[in-house]
Amino acid sequence: MTNNDKLRVGIVGSGNVATHLATAIAESEHELVHIISRDRKRADSLAQNTGAVAITIYEQFAPLDIIILAIKDEALGEEFINHLPSSALICHTSGSVAMDVLNNQSSYGIFYPLQTFSKQKEVDFNSIPICLEANNSKNLQTLHQLAQSISSKVYEVDSAQRKALHLAAVFACNFTNLMYDISEKLCKESGMDFEILRPLIQETAAKVQDHIPSEVQTGPAARNDQKIIEKHQAMLTQHPDYQNIYKILTNEIIQNNEEL
Amino acid sequence: MTNNDKLRVGIVGSGNVATHLATAIAESEHELVHIISRDRKRADSLAQNTGAVAITIYEQFAPLDIIILAIKDEALGEEFINHLPSSALICHTSGSVAMDVLNNQSSYGIFYPLQTFSKQKEVDFNSIPICLEANNSKNLQTLHQLAQSISSKVYEVDSAQRKALHLAAVFACNFTNLMYDISEKLCKESGMDFEILRPLIQETAAKVQDHIPSEVQTGPAARNDQKIIEKHQAMLTQHPDYQNIYKILTNEIIQNNEEL
Repeated sequence: MTNNDKLRVGIVGSGNVATHLATAIAESEHELVHIISRDRKRADSLAQNTGAVAITIYEQFAPLDIIILAIKDEALGEEFINHLPSSALICHTSGSVAMDVLNNQSSYGIFYPLQTFSKQKEVDFNSIPICLEANNSKNLQTLHQLAQSISSKVYEVDSAQRKALHLAAVFACNFTNLMYDISEKLCKESGMDFEILRPLIQETAAKVQDHIPSEVQTGPAARNDQKIIEKHQAMLTQHPDYQNIYKILTNEIIQNNEEL
Repeated sequence: MTNNDKLRVGIVGSGNVATHLATAIAESEHELVHIISRDRKRADSLAQNTGAVAITIYEQFAPLDIIILAIKDEALGEEFINHLPSSALICHTSGSVAMDVLNNQSSYGIFYPLQTFSKQKEVDFNSIPICLEANNSKNLQTLHQLAQSISSKVYEVDSAQRKALHLAAVFACNFTNLMYDISEKLCKESGMDFEILRPLIQETAAKVQDHIPSEVQTGPAARNDQKIIEKHQAMLTQHPDYQNIYKILTNEIIQNNEEL
């Protein structure tokens, strides 16, 4: 590590996670030194935007304390990782790959930001939870130092927990978005603008920011209002898949309430 | 209607919708005259908080332009409604009951605020969509006048559309909250605080405020990443119901993508 605790960071990748991470680190007290890539063109543009130097894995590296692999899960087992400078702490950003994948390295860990990133939308990294794990406590400390400089929500999460978290996030994010998608299609089919549902979506998410979801469950299933439930199912006969989803999720809510 | 277009409003009910509506109308340019109830005690407290006069349906009413029935769906067919002053425009707030239920009245309509209300949480009525319908265009105009004074999002929605909207809202709100609930339980089981998922939930809702949900679908199902999907399903063997929900929603997302 350099004097004055300024960490020198390299990022491998140029996708969504790499882009948002690079931007946040470039603006932090630490130094984003390299954008490392096999595809020089994409790395060039990200490096330019963040004041870093683009470099391919076959070139000469400036000294680095941490290298973050912000690449696809499948790429984490690839040979090129063994060509990275062994003096750096190498970590990956995947929710579903165990830390062991990096155990050829002497220093390794996890730097997993739990958020849904898209190119179009800027994010406030400060409110994004970052989940850390490392092969020893010194390396964990180094990752903390970096994480705390870009986010106020830093957690220590082991590989088993991280996998559970990734699974939970599929429900909280991906499946939730499918619910939005179905509601949008039902709206459109009846000649209404999805705009009419957006405040409800916003408020539903806002409610669980300070409540446990089971405590604020509402709707026909929560009231076990069979009359409405039957009407709704009848309205979905043209959409057997939506009808099936309606039935299964309604039963789950009814069952939850019976267990209370 | 009185001079200077100030509407005199009565609200029947004292539950969540009645409370939030009464508060909004009391703060508007119109006049909240009565909280009408069969249960005098609950009406008293709401009336006190909003500067209205509590009254039971058997008492003498002050002149009213609009009476809003913010009561349970089942109560909308009850006899007491015929005792309300026939000079007032009578409307209900239900998402799932047709306007016809009020066709004994000479002036009637719908005043349906599309939001999930809870006692604990204040709402900004200005951003809540209000869906209007009336038995003639003069009455529709009157409802517009009231609705626009408390919300910037006023829609004309007929009874068939309103039913579709209510169904869509079950997906966008109730089923979404079930997804949050499952994610909370999975988090807890692995010894993690739900706090770690809250920013993701917030961002997932924020994303569809200016995007169509299908355009921002992410996750293993959207990538048809069978390796992760199988791992996730294996992790859910202790929860056959979650496993089933995972399978069905994953297949729906995969199928959606194939149709694109």
